[in-house]
Amino acid sequence: MATAPSVSYSNTVRLEVPASGTAVSQITTAVESRGGSVTGLDVTASGHEALRIDVTIAATSTTHADEIVEQLRTIEGVTLGKVSDRTFLMHLGGKIEMASKHPIRNRDDLSMVYTPGVARVCMAIAENPEDARRLTIKRNTVAVVTDGSAVLGLGNIGPMAAMPVMEGKAALFKRFADIDAWPLCLDTQDTDAIVEIVKAIAPGFAGINLEDISAPRCFEIEARLREALDIPVFHDDQHGTAIVVLAALTNALRVVGKGIGDVRVVMSGAGAAGTAILKLLLAAGVKNAVVADIHGVVHADREDLVSADADSPLRWIADNTNPEGLTGTLKEAVVGADVFIGVSAPNVLNGDDVAAMAEGAIVFALANPDPEVEPAIARQTAAVVATGRSDFPNQINNVLVFPGVFRGLLDAQSRTVNTEMMLAAAGALADVVAEDELNRNYIIPSVFNDKVAGAVAGAVRTAAKAAGAAVTGPTSA
Amino acid sequence: MATAPSVSYSNTVRLEVPASGTAVSQITTAVESRGGSVTGLDVTASGHEALRIDVTIAATSTTHADEIVEQLRTIEGVTLGKVSDRTFLMHLGGKIEMASKHPIRNRDDLSMVYTPGVARVCMAIAENPEDARRLTIKRNTVAVVTDGSAVLGLGNIGPMAAMPVMEGKAALFKRFADIDAWPLCLDTQDTDAIVEIVKAIAPGFAGINLEDISAPRCFEIEARLREALDIPVFHDDQHGTAIVVLAALTNALRVVGKGIGDVRVVMSGAGAAGTAILKLLLAAGVKNAVVADIHGVVHADREDLVSADADSPLRWIADNTNPEGLTGTLKEAVVGADVFIGVSAPNVLNGDDVAAMAEGAIVFALANPDPEVEPAIARQTAAVVATGRSDFPNQINNVLVFPGVFRGLLDAQSRTVNTEMMLAAAGALADVVAEDELNRNYIIPSVFNDKVAGAVAGAVRTAAKAAGAAVTGPTSA
Repeated sequence: MATAPSVSYSNTVRLEVPASGTAVSQITTAVESRGGSVTGLDVTASGHEALRIDVTIAATSTTHADEIVEQLRTIEGVTLGKVSDRTFLMHLGGKIEMASKHPIRNRDDLSMVYTPGVARVCMAIAENPEDARRLTIKRNTVAVVTDGSAVLGLGNIGPMAAMPVMEGKAALFKRFADIDAWPLCLDTQDTDAIVEIVKAIAPGFAGINLEDISAPRCFEIEARLREALDIPVFHDDQHGTAIVVLAALTNALRVVGKGIGDVRVVMSGAGAAGTAILKLLLAAGVKNAVVADIHGVVHADREDLVSADADSPLRWIADNTNPEGLTGTLKEAVVGADVFIGVSAPNVLNGDDVAAMAEGAIVFALANPDPEVEPAIARQTAAVVATGRSDFPNQINNVLVFPGVFRGLLDAQSRTVNTEMMLAAAGALADVVAEDELNRNYIIPSVFNDKVAGAVAGAVRTAAKAAGAAVTGPTSA
Repeated sequence: MATAPSVSYSNTVRLEVPASGTAVSQITTAVESRGGSVTGLDVTASGHEALRIDVTIAATSTTHADEIVEQLRTIEGVTLGKVSDRTFLMHLGGKIEMASKHPIRNRDDLSMVYTPGVARVCMAIAENPEDARRLTIKRNTVAVVTDGSAVLGLGNIGPMAAMPVMEGKAALFKRFADIDAWPLCLDTQDTDAIVEIVKAIAPGFAGINLEDISAPRCFEIEARLREALDIPVFHDDQHGTAIVVLAALTNALRVVGKGIGDVRVVMSGAGAAGTAILKLLLAAGVKNAVVADIHGVVHADREDLVSADADSPLRWIADNTNPEGLTGTLKEAVVGADVFIGVSAPNVLNGDDVAAMAEGAIVFALANPDPEVEPAIARQTAAVVATGRSDFPNQINNVLVFPGVFRGLLDAQSRTVNTEMMLAAAGALADVVAEDELNRNYIIPSVFNDKVAGAVAGAVRTAAKAAGAAVTGPTSA
């Protein structure tokens, strides 16, 4: 699939060019001739004979970026200097830091921030542990925890290589919800060990965001931690995705004028995200859901399920979906379906499959970077199409959800996160799109819409308080 | 012991006083009459009839602070408003936060800080794990880890109540060495569990600062982590203290003109700090050290040691100290000693004991807040006296050491920390005091001396490189 040049494959190239002549226009021409895009051009030094120019170029891949640089090398009179990869430059030394809220200028400051003054604060918390939510960073901190086993679409790359994602996540928590998150990338993929570790580090945090942990371990880890801890535990890959999907579906159904209880939803993918989406859709009122995995439609009589454990995730799906008892392939299941939601693999459907869906079809093709069906083709017959990509309308992006969800949980000092809070978050997110804004290309707001986090946070806070999940006692006043 | 008013027991009191008359002078008089000290007086609102004044008052304890407030209540015409505790105010919401190094203004920023651009950085680290020290926060981060079992002098107050200390420590790391430290207060005091947890969280950090973990568990935890990890593990209560003590002793010996190999050192206390000090002093050249604990002088024939394990800490002390085979009490041991170092309990010595020491006696009475001997009395006969307190000359304070030590270790990308590096740190710290500055009241620089951290860091960095402990390969170039 052809993609547009992106800053995430962006180089800054330093060039020396003759002061006279057409070198500058030749640079932009050369970049564009190879399909690149000049996103910045700064003359950083100017002399009688030569100019030094820093050109920033967006490409579609690292190979493409290299090709463009080679093209620049062919221009007469141009000398190539340093080539800097903007994304890597931004990562040098890491993306986040620790900051002190108070200056430590002198002995007086020191004696309050640290010993001996700090001792009185410690004793206050020892006497009333709930004061930790008032007198320490616990009020506003989330641990971003991964074992590096399922990082983005990159797979099991381990804890060290997962750090850039977790740092980015922490940066997003701050940017969108003023939450202090810190990444903890664990050098173990043992379920028991991860549970023990997260339980142990919990005192200093008001919430746990599990991230990029592979299924099925992520289910057990989350369930055991929720049972053990008195702070909310949220696996963003599951629930963050589920909330955005429900919000987008809510608005897509408004566009096509169908009710959530009346549609048949066909899903491709029964992993962590797929299972969480399914459960939230059922909680939101979907009555007819059909799930397919690589072996086809999930149903109780399928060979691999007949003997499956009663508590296996697939067994749960078989027991709670597919009321019409469909069998066969995904392609067969989507015929006549109202909604397709893919969280699986590229190109499992084609244009004919989408055309065979019901009138007013809704297609969410969320596999990244390459969707389950080419969105441009899906749009030819489907009424509403959404993807996980930023270069098509209707991007399903977890950034719309996790900052606001945790902001609401922290503000409520919630001890837990439950389905009602997630439904509330989805409803609030959907409602950010006003009735007069809603159309097939705008079912979900932009991640930079500044109403989003506040709306989601407010709904979650209210739901948490209604659920009685908030801390009670002196500190909740 | 009488102490001076301190900002760590400091209130800000809001008062309404008549605009005319002597109310303001009556306020300061009232505070001083009760032994308090006015450290700030702001007129925050002024009218024809009344002034609103915020008075900040330092006291010696919370009880004392309350007494002063009651005294203010007795002044004719004065109305008491809100009373704010400055130390608690400073702790509201915690003392540290997470900050993003780059703004996330638009989709381009987002696509580099997070997906999709971040994926290339992840893959670079997956291919070359050492790149984590270049492309992630691992370059500059230290985990401040405690189990809350021995917090300051407060004892086993648990992980939540330990948070204010660990946050303060993180703030000091930033202030004095620009290090990004994050507190991890563990909800377990099981040695095996702590070792497993710290090993697991290590990928995201370049160093581990163990803090306020009780002996003897702290020895085993540190030793096992040093064995397991490829980043330095430093128990500040042990080694930080040992380094400052050695630096101070080095300069004190210069003042009295004695050589480190010629003195008899008597120590009170065989806990974590005492054992670490002893080991570092022996490594630095002390030949005659005698250690006493609550049962008296440690010697091989002492009843509780005859049957002790060969690898017990006390047994090690017995085997490596006391060459003259002293027995009996601490008070007996200090007779004729050149140096006394106390890391034990208040008032184990008196003026007569200090007077019985050798000519040019050096007394480090480090128990906090009340030293082993009243410093004003020790000074009558001892040549040099140091304490852990900020209200006497020669304060032995770990803040002089841990920021610089970790700065040096991180700059060298050191995989470990060893005795040579600690000796180098102590030497550098001692040398910050110039020959012409050195005197009995100035053997150690102030924590706010801006040469300290750089000097210590430089010495540690050099020692780490000399020891071959630094990371080799592409990233250390």
